[in-house]
Amino acid sequence: MRTRAAVALEAGKPLEIMEVNLEGPKAGEVLVEIKATGICHTDEFTRSGADPEGLFPAILGHEGAGVVLEVGEGVTSLKPGDHVIPLYTPECRQCEYCLNPKTNLCQAIRTTQGQGVMPDGTSRFSMLDGTPILHYMGCSTFANHTVLPEIALAKINPDAPFDKVCYIGCGVTTGIGAVINTAKVEIGSRAIVFGLGGIGLNVVQGLRLAGADQIVGVDLNNDKQAMAEHFGMTDFVNPSEVDGDLVAHLVELTKGGADYTFDATGNVNVMRTALEAAHKGWGESIVIGVAPAGAEISTRPFQLVTGRVWRGTAFGGASGRTDVPKIVDWYMDGKIEIDPMITHTLTLDEINKGFDLMHAGESIRAVVVF
Amino acid sequence: MRTRAAVALEAGKPLEIMEVNLEGPKAGEVLVEIKATGICHTDEFTRSGADPEGLFPAILGHEGAGVVLEVGEGVTSLKPGDHVIPLYTPECRQCEYCLNPKTNLCQAIRTTQGQGVMPDGTSRFSMLDGTPILHYMGCSTFANHTVLPEIALAKINPDAPFDKVCYIGCGVTTGIGAVINTAKVEIGSRAIVFGLGGIGLNVVQGLRLAGADQIVGVDLNNDKQAMAEHFGMTDFVNPSEVDGDLVAHLVELTKGGADYTFDATGNVNVMRTALEAAHKGWGESIVIGVAPAGAEISTRPFQLVTGRVWRGTAFGGASGRTDVPKIVDWYMDGKIEIDPMITHTLTLDEINKGFDLMHAGESIRAVVVF
Repeated sequence: MRTRAAVALEAGKPLEIMEVNLEGPKAGEVLVEIKATGICHTDEFTRSGADPEGLFPAILGHEGAGVVLEVGEGVTSLKPGDHVIPLYTPECRQCEYCLNPKTNLCQAIRTTQGQGVMPDGTSRFSMLDGTPILHYMGCSTFANHTVLPEIALAKINPDAPFDKVCYIGCGVTTGIGAVINTAKVEIGSRAIVFGLGGIGLNVVQGLRLAGADQIVGVDLNNDKQAMAEHFGMTDFVNPSEVDGDLVAHLVELTKGGADYTFDATGNVNVMRTALEAAHKGWGESIVIGVAPAGAEISTRPFQLVTGRVWRGTAFGGASGRTDVPKIVDWYMDGKIEIDPMITHTLTLDEINKGFDLMHAGESIRAVVVF
Repeated sequence: MRTRAAVALEAGKPLEIMEVNLEGPKAGEVLVEIKATGICHTDEFTRSGADPEGLFPAILGHEGAGVVLEVGEGVTSLKPGDHVIPLYTPECRQCEYCLNPKTNLCQAIRTTQGQGVMPDGTSRFSMLDGTPILHYMGCSTFANHTVLPEIALAKINPDAPFDKVCYIGCGVTTGIGAVINTAKVEIGSRAIVFGLGGIGLNVVQGLRLAGADQIVGVDLNNDKQAMAEHFGMTDFVNPSEVDGDLVAHLVELTKGGADYTFDATGNVNVMRTALEAAHKGWGESIVIGVAPAGAEISTRPFQLVTGRVWRGTAFGGASGRTDVPKIVDWYMDGKIEIDPMITHTLTLDEINKGFDLMHAGESIRAVVVF
């Protein structure tokens, strides 16, 4: 079949909207009509050429929602008409990782996913002249139709609006999951969130959901304060307005350091501040942000010996097929909010504007609706 | 009263054995006759002048065992004749830290302990000319008699031999506790221990006690192999004999990385190797060693985002008054071994020889018996 897609032809160039060929699903695969997709910093990391592992040409996008159109041989958990969210971290429920409750990093299709192809080693997408186009993060949601492995699709509540719950495919789950699955924040905790962009706001609402007593937000942009307060932030700190040492200020504000701190900036210096602002004896710091290639975090080991813990999280520690449908239900039940974070809705033809809005800091999340 | 002690008069000098004055216990304090004391690297860290927070003149030593001679006003949990192990990490059971099960870092007397004095701000030790001599780590076990706060003494089985269980006052508890309290190693785990000195050997026997399936020891000295195997090591790696990348070698040896890794070297480069040799998705690395002043650990944050956890431990995460008596019982019951690690027994007059043996790498633990 043919479908319309935004194609990243080479690093650093705007995406090009074009008709492409899409082969139907092979065994274990599913054809999905994408109804909406968010535009995430990770897409931009690859599009811009900053990702040393980026491959081109490719159809980017990994934060989508859509409807199953057709299932390949052997697919048993999905049928045409099911509403789904693509998962860049799949959940096979069979591999050593899926069977270990400490991790969500299913390895079943990791190698081929990293190579931009389906598990059989080939791509379903091609140019009209036959040139293959690679998949991206196993999702390629910047296409009106895409093919994914069955294990990379979460079946969700069919009443959920695609243009909102697509954000659960990455940002919402990453932020809320970091709180619930990775940090396992307890009721009454004090927490600090560094960076109040899309991920940071979801960490903030995850903390509210988890019953944190104090939720400190840290951002260099005062314009972030109102929205973060809406999602549950109790204290705002702009580091450029702090006299003296930021760590000392945060430790005082949290009466000895935070029980949990979260980096949602990707800046390795901020990651260090986040660790050191965690409470002596038990404070845990969670790295969420993706750092530039080659950047390193550092601290004195004394920070760990005196009880701080340094962790990271990917996709919020969520096992997608199990956890994503629950988060969709939380949204439908009003336990979490998404609508105020979807600041811009675009057509596929306008997708490059979404990247411009991201760079200008004007959007929290821009969503393309097909 | 007067007692004999090894006094550190100034940084970098050998200890001087001399008669000193010792005041009796004030309220909440206990006079202890020290029967035996180990000589630990931490004593040497201070004696040598490497510790920027070292204070002089002081009576060092923090790994002792002895008998209560007299108790001060208000002391209720101890009486003359009780056998005790001094605790450089006390356990008041009242402070915010003691009441938090995530930490053992009792803060009740931390400030005065760091200043080398008792909680009332004064020292009980002085030269015969009246010059005050500071306490060290709240213990000062390099004296035949010493005074400690009640909360810094663990009451132990009176049948336990002082010259062996003194080692539980630091090294044994630090190593075994890192496994049991900090890492909480599960039966069947794979683990790597970096550094097979006194702490490392206790980590190894802690892992055996915890039921680890694979216990890899890493040391540059092949002479360490036999003893480590005696304590439960299953695989020995000498990094100088590994072709290529050490992390890759260890990951292969442990079938994907270790569930738990432990640094018992104090070398920040080894700490990084330990983290990176932990299993993707769930491996935890525990920093035990004390690094040189100002040294920093570093890694790519990707190591954490892909599921590795970086922790540290002090006194093996043990709450001393509660846990140390249990470890003494484990020794008495044959669950753990200490005797082969006490390689040298000295008199107080020979104490400087103990530091020489440490530097020569000839001792695991030298113990002074009074």
